[in-house]
Amino acid sequence: MVLDPPLAHPLVGRLAIIGIGLIGSSILRAAAARKLAGTLIAYDGNEAVRARAAGLGLADLVAETPAQAVADADIIILCVPVGAMAAVAQDIAPHVKPGAIVSDVGSVKASVLNALRAHLPEGVHVIPGHPVAGTEYSGPDAGFATLFQNRWSILTPPEGADADAVARLSQLWSAMGANVETMTPEHHDLVLAITSHVPHLIAYNIVGTAADLEDVTQSEVIKYSAGGFRDFTRIAASDPTMWRDVFLNNREAVIEVLGRFTEDLIALQRAIRWAEGDKLFDLFTRTRAIRRSIIEIGQETAEPDFGRERG
Amino acid sequence: MVLDPPLAHPLVGRLAIIGIGLIGSSILRAAAARKLAGTLIAYDGNEAVRARAAGLGLADLVAETPAQAVADADIIILCVPVGAMAAVAQDIAPHVKPGAIVSDVGSVKASVLNALRAHLPEGVHVIPGHPVAGTEYSGPDAGFATLFQNRWSILTPPEGADADAVARLSQLWSAMGANVETMTPEHHDLVLAITSHVPHLIAYNIVGTAADLEDVTQSEVIKYSAGGFRDFTRIAASDPTMWRDVFLNNREAVIEVLGRFTEDLIALQRAIRWAEGDKLFDLFTRTRAIRRSIIEIGQETAEPDFGRERG
Ligand SMILES: NC(=O)c1ccc[n+]([C@@H]2O[C@H](COP(=O)([O-])OP(=O)(O)OC[C@H]3O[C@@H](n4cnc5c(N)ncnc54)[C@H](OP(=O)(O)O)[C@@H]3O)[C@@H](O)[C@H]2O)c1
Ligand SMILES: NC(=O)c1ccc[n+]([C@@H]2O[C@H](COP(=O)([O-])OP(=O)(O)OC[C@H]3O[C@@H](n4cnc5c(N)ncnc54)[C@H](OP(=O)(O)O)[C@@H]3O)[C@@H](O)[C@H]2O)c1
Repeated sequence: MVLDPPLAHPLVGRLAIIGIGLIGSSILRAAAARKLAGTLIAYDGNEAVRARAAGLGLADLVAETPAQAVADADIIILCVPVGAMAAVAQDIAPHVKPGAIVSDVGSVKASVLNALRAHLPEGVHVIPGHPVAGTEYSGPDAGFATLFQNRWSILTPPEGADADAVARLSQLWSAMGANVETMTPEHHDLVLAITSHVPHLIAYNIVGTAADLEDVTQSEVIKYSAGGFRDFTRIAASDPTMWRDVFLNNREAVIEVLGRFTEDLIALQRAIRWAEGDKLFDLFTRTRAIRRSIIEIGQETAEPDFGRERG
Repeated sequence: MVLDPPLAHPLVGRLAIIGIGLIGSSILRAAAARKLAGTLIAYDGNEAVRARAAGLGLADLVAETPAQAVADADIIILCVPVGAMAAVAQDIAPHVKPGAIVSDVGSVKASVLNALRAHLPEGVHVIPGHPVAGTEYSGPDAGFATLFQNRWSILTPPEGADADAVARLSQLWSAMGANVETMTPEHHDLVLAITSHVPHLIAYNIVGTAADLEDVTQSEVIKYSAGGFRDFTRIAASDPTMWRDVFLNNREAVIEVLGRFTEDLIALQRAIRWAEGDKLFDLFTRTRAIRRSIIEIGQETAEPDFGRERG
């Protein structure tokens, strides 16, 4: 897929990205490719990442401090792990200009909204966001301009948020190829618990279980992983810091959904124990329809094996 | 990937495949491409499948009955669901020639070995097998000649099996591009419980849980599936009959591994509840190493997102 051609006039004057990892660098690349901002500014707490971002030419200016990055910026997007949002908000608070939009891309929304509002002054538009797009890789080299293309980006504006500011942020995501939805932070956190957080937890867990079995060697697990196991290892290879922060910040919804998952799993286990083949068959038939729908709306490939190289 | 060039002399005189689905048709295609058999014979219980197989030219002869298929065959491979193995063994038993090899590709081995031995006469070499390769699709159109390339194929010869017969079957799999291993049926069933059966069960289960939540709509689950959920839907779209039979026939090992999985998951849930970030971080770090190993030995692609089309 390709991006639409560059705009004749940028949507944003100064766009500042804090955290130049997979997501931050993808925003920078998409914004540069489509000329969405007059000036692109980037900052990262990690010196090596700043140097790499400068080397890759990801921004017009790679700032040396958070203060320098946000000075006079119209839209600021925090692209750091969820657990680092409060610290960054505190760092930038004295330097954000009135009327600026401060958003983020964190995978959890209620706790981030609280963190941002606790630190940022009145007169700054706090509008959290979350692009539902990513890969298992991290860092400035992992990003690409089409990451958000045909994916959903969720905004969770607090009650009473400025409609014009929400519209401007929404336009920016649309211009990067995303479909934009708004919902409450609480609903976001529940929806993502089932569509993202619990799947990651389960994937991490089964990979851990496999590593710890006494009667099956690690080498056997690895050799015969093409039977299904390897599908889980992709998301179980995602960044540990990011995911630790997700679980610590979305505890309630994750524990609630996990409770449902476990209840259902125990019912399945019982059906296996009592050889209730029809119950198994019914579930296995029902679940196919969901994949079909995901493929139909273009959120998944229909290629066998995700289109992995054959053989 | 491509197959090696055809052999100058076939390895097998008459090779008979019973069940012309994903696996059966892949064997037929690989055997034809490399000229591994003097004559290829195929049979399926489903008339439409037989017609399609004939139309695709998958065999030299598409037999009308199991008896016709196995008459004078040197190697016979049963490629039907695990629950159908006993019935097929019974159908063919009177017609298999002495000294022939009867094998299968079923995903469970102890129960299949019992079923085959119960029905087949002395003097026939029963050597069960299982190629650890597949996709989420079924039927004669889903197969391809390189399916077994660079994958492991496990043979589970019973004690006292004829070494020469095992070697001939092993050669056949090698010639289709597979690496061959032998192990006991019981060990196979435990290894596959963790590398394939329980991963499938968990995938089916989470897709079912997602479909049943009251506070998150099906359309939300589908829209935001790119956050991780969609990875699970691939294997949860696999054939219901095949998978029902797997669970009914590998109950003990599946329930044992499931017990470990649940125990580990509850410990993780507790770590989340008590905000034990270090425990989460440690597990999430450990699991990355396993994916790296799977990629290193060529059982997985290193491409982000399995190499799915970007955007
Ligand atoms: N990955 C995904 O699939 C995905 C998808 C949607 C949303 N998200 C969300 O997007 C955010 C970023 O994820 P990512 O995958 O882009 O992460 P990433 O590739 O690891 O990049 C994060 C960057 O932020 C830097 N950083 C950490 N703390 C900082 C601080 N206090 N001040 C300035 N910079 C700091 C990190 O530096 P170090 O190198 O020193 O750590 C790193 O360079 C997370 O909140 C995540 O939940 C991720
Ligand atoms: N799919 C995988 O990823 C995979 C991987 C490794 C091993 N296996 C094993 O391979 C075997 C076949 O799986 P598959 O995916 O190839 O299945 P498939 O595509 O569904 O094909 C199975 C074929 O066998 C036919 N059949 C069923 N019962 C029969 C009988 N009694 N006599 C003759 N034909 C009969 C079926 O006919 P109908 O159309 O009437 O059902 C169907 O055409 C299973 O034992 C499975 O456990 C599968």
